[in-house]
Amino acid sequence: MKHTITFKPSDVSIRVDQGTNLLDAALAAGVHINASCGGQGVCGKCRVILETGDVESQENENITAEEFDKGWRLACRTSVVSDCLIQIPPESRGAEGFVAQKLDMGKAERTVSELEPIPLAADWKLDPIVTKVPLRLNKPSFGENISDLSRFLSGLKKQHGIEAVSTEMRCLRVLPKILRDNDWSVTATVMSDPAQELGLLPSEKKGLPRLVRVEGGDTSDKNLALALDVGTTTVSAQLVDLNTGKVGADKSVYNNQIKYGDDVITRIVFAQKGDGLKKMQTAVVASINQLIDKLLEESGNSKENISAVCAAGNTTMTHLLLGVEPRYIREAPYVPAAGFMPLERAADIGIDLPDGVRLYTFPSVASYVGGDIVSGIFGAGISQGEELTLYIDIGTNGEIVLGNKELLACAACSMGPAFEGGGIRHGMRADIGAIEGFHINPITLEPMVVTVGKSRARGICGSGLISILAELLSAGVIDQNGKFEQKLSSKRVRSGGSGGEYVLVWAKDSATEQDIVITEVDIENLVRAKGALFAGCQTLLSSLSFSFEDIEKIVIAGAFGHYINLEKGKLIGLFPDLPVEKFHFIGNGSIMGARLACLYKGMLNEVERVAKMMTNVELSDNQSFMDKYMAALFLPHTESRFFHNVSKYLEKSRQVAKREREAQ
Amino acid sequence: MKHTITFKPSDVSIRVDQGTNLLDAALAAGVHINASCGGQGVCGKCRVILETGDVESQENENITAEEFDKGWRLACRTSVVSDCLIQIPPESRGAEGFVAQKLDMGKAERTVSELEPIPLAADWKLDPIVTKVPLRLNKPSFGENISDLSRFLSGLKKQHGIEAVSTEMRCLRVLPKILRDNDWSVTATVMSDPAQELGLLPSEKKGLPRLVRVEGGDTSDKNLALALDVGTTTVSAQLVDLNTGKVGADKSVYNNQIKYGDDVITRIVFAQKGDGLKKMQTAVVASINQLIDKLLEESGNSKENISAVCAAGNTTMTHLLLGVEPRYIREAPYVPAAGFMPLERAADIGIDLPDGVRLYTFPSVASYVGGDIVSGIFGAGISQGEELTLYIDIGTNGEIVLGNKELLACAACSMGPAFEGGGIRHGMRADIGAIEGFHINPITLEPMVVTVGKSRARGICGSGLISILAELLSAGVIDQNGKFEQKLSSKRVRSGGSGGEYVLVWAKDSATEQDIVITEVDIENLVRAKGALFAGCQTLLSSLSFSFEDIEKIVIAGAFGHYINLEKGKLIGLFPDLPVEKFHFIGNGSIMGARLACLYKGMLNEVERVAKMMTNVELSDNQSFMDKYMAALFLPHTESRFFHNVSKYLEKSRQVAKREREAQ
Repeated sequence: MKHTITFKPSDVSIRVDQGTNLLDAALAAGVHINASCGGQGVCGKCRVILETGDVESQENENITAEEFDKGWRLACRTSVVSDCLIQIPPESRGAEGFVAQKLDMGKAERTVSELEPIPLAADWKLDPIVTKVPLRLNKPSFGENISDLSRFLSGLKKQHGIEAVSTEMRCLRVLPKILRDNDWSVTATVMSDPAQELGLLPSEKKGLPRLVRVEGGDTSDKNLALALDVGTTTVSAQLVDLNTGKVGADKSVYNNQIKYGDDVITRIVFAQKGDGLKKMQTAVVASINQLIDKLLEESGNSKENISAVCAAGNTTMTHLLLGVEPRYIREAPYVPAAGFMPLERAADIGIDLPDGVRLYTFPSVASYVGGDIVSGIFGAGISQGEELTLYIDIGTNGEIVLGNKELLACAACSMGPAFEGGGIRHGMRADIGAIEGFHINPITLEPMVVTVGKSRARGICGSGLISILAELLSAGVIDQNGKFEQKLSSKRVRSGGSGGEYVLVWAKDSATEQDIVITEVDIENLVRAKGALFAGCQTLLSSLSFSFEDIEKIVIAGAFGHYINLEKGKLIGLFPDLPVEKFHFIGNGSIMGARLACLYKGMLNEVERVAKMMTNVELSDNQSFMDKYMAALFLPHTESRFFHNVSKYLEKSRQVAKREREAQ
Repeated sequence: MKHTITFKPSDVSIRVDQGTNLLDAALAAGVHINASCGGQGVCGKCRVILETGDVESQENENITAEEFDKGWRLACRTSVVSDCLIQIPPESRGAEGFVAQKLDMGKAERTVSELEPIPLAADWKLDPIVTKVPLRLNKPSFGENISDLSRFLSGLKKQHGIEAVSTEMRCLRVLPKILRDNDWSVTATVMSDPAQELGLLPSEKKGLPRLVRVEGGDTSDKNLALALDVGTTTVSAQLVDLNTGKVGADKSVYNNQIKYGDDVITRIVFAQKGDGLKKMQTAVVASINQLIDKLLEESGNSKENISAVCAAGNTTMTHLLLGVEPRYIREAPYVPAAGFMPLERAADIGIDLPDGVRLYTFPSVASYVGGDIVSGIFGAGISQGEELTLYIDIGTNGEIVLGNKELLACAACSMGPAFEGGGIRHGMRADIGAIEGFHINPITLEPMVVTVGKSRARGICGSGLISILAELLSAGVIDQNGKFEQKLSSKRVRSGGSGGEYVLVWAKDSATEQDIVITEVDIENLVRAKGALFAGCQTLLSSLSFSFEDIEKIVIAGAFGHYINLEKGKLIGLFPDLPVEKFHFIGNGSIMGARLACLYKGMLNEVERVAKMMTNVELSDNQSFMDKYMAALFLPHTESRFFHNVSKYLEKSRQVAKREREAQ
């Protein structure tokens, strides 16, 4: 159920789901409410008055009983249960005129949750890569004393039409006992063989179904897959129910390889030293095992219920995960060991799952265009559509694809880990306490800080960084080179160890008991990252003789949680300055593709088609790219023609903010 | 080159190969020469005189220089290089009349080496299960920077027509470095997938060729397979060159599982206790590893040259080798875990060979009809012929097949390890020092003892046991119940700890410095073993309404070395009393089949056909078999009609011997 929330005095309205937090609703509407602690009710700054409508609200020491009766609430502790009219009192408020002017831009700020989802796999019938089927067999007798395995396989054929099956020795070893202990009622786990369905095979030479597990009784309702996005900085995992297609649990952790280097290049270099390759494989596998534990704990499942693992990652991450030499990915002419990786037992590389479970990985197209991007394109259905689509996957490796069902070209650029919180003083993943939403009052420079889980702030995640950078820029707190303006009369802007910095959360309100800040060095890293991505998009477009205007659809992927803000992304030059209507957000495209591959085994043929039609535009030694990159190291860009709307808005916004501050 | 050797005074001649040892020639001709030490020239008893012809002979302290000049030689130290006339002096001689009477039987004694070999795989073209092919690839360039694996596989297709290949991760892991270290010249090892070619698959769904190894340079000339016969008592191995089909080396060792029980039943029982199954797998794998070391040492090859392992064994041995529960093989209704075993990596069960090497096993037909027998039938070409053939494989499990290309029935009976030397006081394998040939002088009861390698005797092997039993029986030293006759005036016949015994070799002449004897208990074991086999043959024949007279061909298999003697086997009732012309000997049929399967991968389809058309006659709870077994516990048999010729001969021979002894 949706409700309309109207904020006064600005009269901005937004439609939100039942139960939406009021601070989240304001953030999404672009309405500023001071909030210093992140949302745990500690700072007591986000006081609002409920004029009409029903809410659920926790009592809080910052609101007296008398105030509560009069309708005072802490926005961060309040969720909506009907249409509401909310009055924001002056002490909690942003700058009125400023907000109004921002809204002149049109439907200024749309959060991710409002973006139209792309219909995925709409035409596909659920047909998972691994199936579990129950069997009831007759006991052997003197008249019919064929071997246990023959009996089993003939049951599989007669009862489920599964005809040609190759068998694992480990299944056979336990078969006689399981059959007899369970009165000849068992469950077979049968996987298709993607190592043979993918790759260089003519279509008539497909692999055979393979028996990978036998269990007693009927356990066919417990059939899960682990979908993985193995990112350079972050590893994400989902537990997917192969019977229903539903995601049971979803978790991310940092890739433990980070200790060996921030980006793919340093990792490749490290892999060449001694047992560096082994160490990095062990590290990422440890991250995966950590995720498995978390997912199982959260969902109350056991390892035995997991039947398959499908991992998508960039070419280097895929090589490192499988322990394959990545060296030549980096050396001209940039040759990966393989695009289509052979199937591997998950347990053989240390993943803590039962023996029969196979790990399969998305194919890579080239050294710098990995399975993560193929997976994402596949997940977003780009290769099946007519519209010319620009696909942008934001990660340590920025992955870009341009195309439709007839044309696919791609490029990848090194963005570094900044947007995942790496190399940022108080950067962190989008976990509890991560600042994911941010507004600034351009007059007082007081912040509205919203954290994941409405908890005391611990740090800043990617979507928070985009908001912070955009807000500091549009309020004129930083200049277009990313340097802090001098002479701002707020103690939140100060000089720190790394040049200028802005204090987002004071130590007393933070979870870390330290001031949480963003520094000029952080901003430099962010500017370099967004510059690389934008230059990559430009280079890919021009190499195919397209311009930004030709793009009919933009799909943004990345592990950003719910709060990536398109307009703010445009403001800092991260996204092209195109109408919001063209944008679609699919979240973590890589893991989505991995999930779909588990659910629709026929899609693997489509993956193969996508991978084969893809042209790679190499950026790593491309002078045109380097020139464009240098030109992009400015907010939003040195050439304002690329950011026409945004530049106009920014100019006005910065002027107004400056004027209003001086008028105080 | 062949030469004719004539022994005087009996005037018996035999055609032998150039270089044949004179003692061996006499043994093969049925001519007795006293020889007490086994053949090392120690006892000095086998003195003969070279009358005409050329020999090579070592000087020996038992022949003076003067004697040597006069033509005296030790037979055991002499080999023939031309036609020869050999005089056996009275002190070395057997009993003349006795020998002559034995020869009345016709061509009385034919050794194995004289038996007509069965043409094997005559119509098949060499097409090994694993091939190695050299590849020369172009270096990658910016214009052609496909992945290493794509480059490799496309080379395999273009240069060798090998199209659809699935790949092992372990190959991919080393591929980038191997390609570059060897200037893009490498060798691919590609195996066909018998787990998918055998078994329950429709013929159009065959497995794909699989890349299992990549090596630098051109190593395609080094492509070996290990063919294994995993017997209950003995494990035999051959190193087969997959490029030429030749056997490079051949070795046997005792199966280390013997310590857990002599026969399959006790092994199955042991496997049910605690980690008994694991212990027995470890034990047999240790035997295999021991064989690998010996074969490699002897042939000067390295492990890296071995590309595949093919093992044939009875159903229980195959289960134990692969670590599969054998329990239900033994419990009614006698169900094995599988007939066609899935393919397994040899290294995964502890076989000390490179990771890519697969172990494949011959399919079993039933609990008591294993891959060893399927392998043997296959090797002997029975399933392709028209003649009604009785196939007998002598081992701890005696395997019997009756059939031709239209009919195949089989049975298996427990013979125990006696004919492999197990449960025999001085039993041993056919290794250096094993007594493999034996004659007795029926008057003096002095023996002619010939050992493997003409070395001091260490013990007695299977073919020696057959000869000893037959000679003691036909000389009337033992009665037809296997008990020693009383009142024989030879110190060689005496009473020992296990009843009567005969001293084959005195301690002073033996390698063990102990008297080497055969005891009544040994003889009991041998009688039980031969009784079980004969009863099995009878039961199988009668179950198909055939009699011994219907048999057109008899194929004898077993790991007996060169000296199994058909007539002597008939004398003790081990083989049916049929004309010698019907007999063929193929040695170790099981290992021969395993070898052929490595060399002709298309034969696997034939194996499948053989396995499928085979009917099993169960003996283990068959009353008719039990009755026949009891009746067979006599030498040669309680019913002389089954051994008409043999019984007549024996009666006469025993009478003559007794009379001659009494005449002394």
